Amino acid sequence: MHHTARLRALRRALLRQGIESLLVTHLPDVRWLCGFTGSNAALAITSRKAVLFTDGRYTAQAKEETQAARVVIAKGSALKEACALLEASAAGAAFDPEQTTVRQLGMMREALPAKARRSFFQPLKAPVVSELRMVKDADELRVMEEAAAVGCTLFDAILPHIVPGVPETEIAATLEFFARSLGAEGMSFETIVASGQRSALPHGRATEAKLPRNGFVTLDFGVILKGYCSDMTRTVCLGKPDGEARQAYDAVLEAQQAAVEAVRPGATCGEVDEAARAVLRKAGLAQYFTHSTGHGVGLEIHELPRVAAGQRAELVPGMMITIEPGIYLAGKFGVRIEDMVAVTDRGRRVLTPAVKALIEL
Amino acid sequence: MHHTARLRALRRALLRQGIESLLVTHLPDVRWLCGFTGSNAALAITSRKAVLFTDGRYTAQAKEETQAARVVIAKGSALKEACALLEASAAGAAFDPEQTTVRQLGMMREALPAKARRSFFQPLKAPVVSELRMVKDADELRVMEEAAAVGCTLFDAILPHIVPGVPETEIAATLEFFARSLGAEGMSFETIVASGQRSALPHGRATEAKLPRNGFVTLDFGVILKGYCSDMTRTVCLGKPDGEARQAYDAVLEAQQAAVEAVRPGATCGEVDEAARAVLRKAGLAQYFTHSTGHGVGLEIHELPRVAAGQRAELVPGMMITIEPGIYLAGKFGVRIEDMVAVTDRGRRVLTPAVKALIEL
Repeated sequence: MHHTARLRALRRALLRQGIESLLVTHLPDVRWLCGFTGSNAALAITSRKAVLFTDGRYTAQAKEETQAARVVIAKGSALKEACALLEASAAGAAFDPEQTTVRQLGMMREALPAKARRSFFQPLKAPVVSELRMVKDADELRVMEEAAAVGCTLFDAILPHIVPGVPETEIAATLEFFARSLGAEGMSFETIVASGQRSALPHGRATEAKLPRNGFVTLDFGVILKGYCSDMTRTVCLGKPDGEARQAYDAVLEAQQAAVEAVRPGATCGEVDEAARAVLRKAGLAQYFTHSTGHGVGLEIHELPRVAAGQRAELVPGMMITIEPGIYLAGKFGVRIEDMVAVTDRGRRVLTPAVKALIEL
Repeated sequence: MHHTARLRALRRALLRQGIESLLVTHLPDVRWLCGFTGSNAALAITSRKAVLFTDGRYTAQAKEETQAARVVIAKGSALKEACALLEASAAGAAFDPEQTTVRQLGMMREALPAKARRSFFQPLKAPVVSELRMVKDADELRVMEEAAAVGCTLFDAILPHIVPGVPETEIAATLEFFARSLGAEGMSFETIVASGQRSALPHGRATEAKLPRNGFVTLDFGVILKGYCSDMTRTVCLGKPDGEARQAYDAVLEAQQAAVEAVRPGATCGEVDEAARAVLRKAGLAQYFTHSTGHGVGLEIHELPRVAAGQRAELVPGMMITIEPGIYLAGKFGVRIEDMVAVTDRGRRVLTPAVKALIEL
């Protein structure tokens, strides 16, 4: 049902852009459009047809999962067979240049008769499927709310395990076991547990390093539920933070709250980013905020829109973004706080209500 | 030390192919060449320089990890800055068309002066870094042996948990917790637990489905240790298999052993594939063997070489491949058995000694 509606929305968007047919190979796009979750797929979409090509490993699974598209088990290359069908059905086809390798484009062209090779395939000017996927439908919002709630439960459950001397990897292992026990299909990215000086690494994967007696521990993690990702970060403190650390934490929290409050329909992503950045600038900490404020999240952990400086994309109800400013003082410590935030008709809904006031353990 | 040797080997390979400089953006290639593990990287390699470009999130981490290359924290796009450096240092540069999107190639060209845009970047004719990565050095072999051993320990540890009525996801969760406890950084792919009729899905991710009283359970999983992947599959039986199932299991086991024995320096990958396929053909089951026999494994779960029908690539000591024939009877059952096998000077070494005779639970 959803898949039929999504295909319809996609065809409308293609029509508006004067695109006759589309080749979809990015797996999350394929899943979103027709439900198939296998690892090899090429979805050919014309104004009248939608045909999913995959290989013999997925005969049973493709039949079971695929909605709103016919399934063809390719004898050779699924990609090439999809291209041949498009060429037989349309005068031209678009593809997503962000999700197509130079090698794949070569193969796509090889599948065509010589005269069509030069001009049949044209890159999309706008990432049309990614843009449609930005706005979640009611079912997607429900699943993502559930995924975010699992994240919060995990955070509460892991707190008692955060004890000096425990290796970061053990915290990650325990958190991931709880996640699975709560029904997660997996983690949406490699769990980050970064303690002490390592908290100054924005992407500090869990290592054998032992939690310190005194210092920050940043936990950044997410689960996958029915294919959808959650994403949240909390920074807690073992012992009491010193004055500089306390000040830094308070500044990041204030920046995070300011950005959350800037989320509303019609606001640009750049404005939301600036709301966080302005607070840190005032605190004299802006130079340590070395990444963007957030990103869309859904079937993939990083989706559109980008919530970054200068981004003019406007927020629309149904979008799901993260708000995650952080500062990183090399050799000292780092702090990051992240919520998942849904854009609503009237403003926003924070999906990760876990405590943000500094927790001292 | 290794990284210096790897860069040297790469430069020799480039020289042989008449390539003056290379842009490396595929993250496992970057890691293999210079040790950096961040998520944004462009490594520019000329005959005299190796410069890693990344962004501000990785300032500390890049300094800590990167070997044999200079680190530059890009102010704008790391990719574009790497291209500008190449253009200033060489008359042309190669890139990997399998790891470069059409969009990235557009950005790479945008970074060049107009006159260089058309011809400066040329696709590699052979995947030179992937080919070098096929042959593991002593340290890599040691880590992979350790990773494979963790896999076998996990298999033994999970057996008592395989009980009728337990959801597949619980088996996966327990296995993954044990993996973390044994020091794994994560799983090398989504753990497959496919029971009963679901064992006929070659890529049957663990679901809420409960293990049956009677039937096969296929476990396909791997861990990541120091960045390197393990991969193994065993199919066990709850209760007694019927005649057809027993026959199928025996045929797959025989096929798997035949392919393992075909592994030796100088054998082609196609010959190894054919060794498995011939056994299943004789048993009248070849049509149910719907995938290739195996693949290389290392920093990525799927690497070169492809162990598939007709592949002429020859095995060389130091290569690490999987041997994993399987058959899938839709609506009935499936069987797959997989080992990791290192090619040695004199033949092969199986790294996954876990029992392959049918285990009835």
